[in-house]
Amino acid sequence: MIRHSFTYTNPFTFESGESISNLEIVYHTSSRDWQKNDSRKVIWICHALTGNSDPEEWWSDLVGKGRLIDTEKYFVICVNMLGSPYGTTSPASINPNSGTPYFFDYPAFTIRDIVNSEIIIRKHLGIESIDFMIGSSIGGFQSLEWLIMEPDIIKNAVIIATSAMTTPWLTAHNESMRMALEADPSFRECKSLKGGEMGLRTARAIGMTLYRSREGYGLTQAEPDPEFVFSSKAASYQRYQGKKLSDRFDAYSYYYLINSTDSQNLGRGRGGIEKALSTVSANCTFIAIDSDGIFSVQEIQHVADCIRNSSMNIISSDFGHDGFLIEYPKITKIIEPILKKL
Amino acid sequence: MIRHSFTYTNPFTFESGESISNLEIVYHTSSRDWQKNDSRKVIWICHALTGNSDPEEWWSDLVGKGRLIDTEKYFVICVNMLGSPYGTTSPASINPNSGTPYFFDYPAFTIRDIVNSEIIIRKHLGIESIDFMIGSSIGGFQSLEWLIMEPDIIKNAVIIATSAMTTPWLTAHNESMRMALEADPSFRECKSLKGGEMGLRTARAIGMTLYRSREGYGLTQAEPDPEFVFSSKAASYQRYQGKKLSDRFDAYSYYYLINSTDSQNLGRGRGGIEKALSTVSANCTFIAIDSDGIFSVQEIQHVADCIRNSSMNIISSDFGHDGFLIEYPKITKIIEPILKKL
Repeated sequence: MIRHSFTYTNPFTFESGESISNLEIVYHTSSRDWQKNDSRKVIWICHALTGNSDPEEWWSDLVGKGRLIDTEKYFVICVNMLGSPYGTTSPASINPNSGTPYFFDYPAFTIRDIVNSEIIIRKHLGIESIDFMIGSSIGGFQSLEWLIMEPDIIKNAVIIATSAMTTPWLTAHNESMRMALEADPSFRECKSLKGGEMGLRTARAIGMTLYRSREGYGLTQAEPDPEFVFSSKAASYQRYQGKKLSDRFDAYSYYYLINSTDSQNLGRGRGGIEKALSTVSANCTFIAIDSDGIFSVQEIQHVADCIRNSSMNIISSDFGHDGFLIEYPKITKIIEPILKKL
Repeated sequence: MIRHSFTYTNPFTFESGESISNLEIVYHTSSRDWQKNDSRKVIWICHALTGNSDPEEWWSDLVGKGRLIDTEKYFVICVNMLGSPYGTTSPASINPNSGTPYFFDYPAFTIRDIVNSEIIIRKHLGIESIDFMIGSSIGGFQSLEWLIMEPDIIKNAVIIATSAMTTPWLTAHNESMRMALEADPSFRECKSLKGGEMGLRTARAIGMTLYRSREGYGLTQAEPDPEFVFSSKAASYQRYQGKKLSDRFDAYSYYYLINSTDSQNLGRGRGGIEKALSTVSANCTFIAIDSDGIFSVQEIQHVADCIRNSSMNIISSDFGHDGFLIEYPKITKIIEPILKKL
């Protein structure tokens, strides 16, 4: 896919009322640019928390030339979400007012703000119909919001491991992560984007157990030495994952992004979740993962039940919420017939 | 119950080979001291991670005058475990060699070391038979070790929410907690027992989601305002619990105690878990909590299956691993008939 960057020259106003100027929005599209009267079907992918706008990189089993989501056949698009450090203006971007990164001067943003920034790209390209939208986790948060914010645009949506509202459980984990970031004093010092690095690693370690599952750790991180005095294999894994994230991500963007997940409340200003979901007209396919440590099957079933044209699928996985990045054959089996009907 | 303190004047040698002198061991007993030829039945309680040796304080529904574990009827005893800051020599105690707290000069200790320190008290009091031992979580780790270390002493044991071996899942969470402690640089500075305070709060927040459950958070921490922009109730709860622990506990003792849980490996030096458990002759009653986020019912069932005289009970609870501190009527129903038969 090809990387593009668009600068929005109007002030971009957040749900909070704050705004920033010259918002840069990075996105990837299929190799051929979108044309006026293009006959290709549009597939819009919303990426997850620490992902980027190139799904060929993080969803390579599903997206690419000759893959299920065929970049030669469809017009595939993915926008790097607001606040992510993969190109779109984020807390790590230079604040023109100070000449340093925004750090905490970046406005707090919500899922709706993220979707608003994506709608700017849709309009910029002149796309008037999205044939198929797919999002997992916070990508699914965006997809659900979008179904309500632009009810006539999206025809089909696949929503994986996502709910219509954040939960106390997710917020509690987010708070543990925030506490970890703040326990590292370099985070508040805002001297460089390495600020909060140890906190970020800890936050990622906290995230790993939330995104994976007890069974998954049991399968992959079992102690090899039956005579062990202090177990250590799973501990090394936590450190490894923490370091791996801090090598590619900054603590400030991470902090803002997890905060945005606390804003997921489809019912806000719309008379409640059920009423909001009743306005959705797209054909929606939900995929819940039985071992998902964030959203239970029941929670996702409830969302599906509130939407007129919806179907519910439960995937069995040992890998929890992250199953959306692992269980390709099972996801393919559900998505394939929908794509065939486009 | 009455507080006692005993100083072990021989060097106390740890499993690692290190030793410390003049180990102080604090314990609580029923109001009347243990007598030679005392006819009372002995009930030994092993406390959990951040507990102390006074179960009337943290298990008041079960332990006290006229309670199920009646301190007037039985000789009830609980030892403050090795490394805990509630009186027994811990990393927070003054190291006579330096005149400052031990901090990281305290030897790393295992569950077996903890039990060895408790056996000192048993011998000191001249108790030759423990009629009923009960332990939950790391208290259950101790009870299980004890059944193997002193096979002829314990007649009945109730083991709650505990397994015979640590798991990758527990170690992963412990590592997230260690990373949180270390993200706070005051932890390594060892200037005072307030070192690592922010890390300790974070570690406790991480612990809360491990000890409780998604369902429990859903029931108690739901966002009260349906129009919320950023959810916050569960976040406040995490901070509150973190502060509550840091007001009563130091980061160093906490660090050593969680490390000790990584040492749980009943099979070490004994030809494996199954072989070790096959030597247990006591009458063992296991209680698993269906929502336990640390040890699954299956894990506990396997331990019960390996012991000759054992029975398995599953408690239904919304409160996860911490159910052992909450589900009193259900626990009472299981324990009562065992106590009646003593």
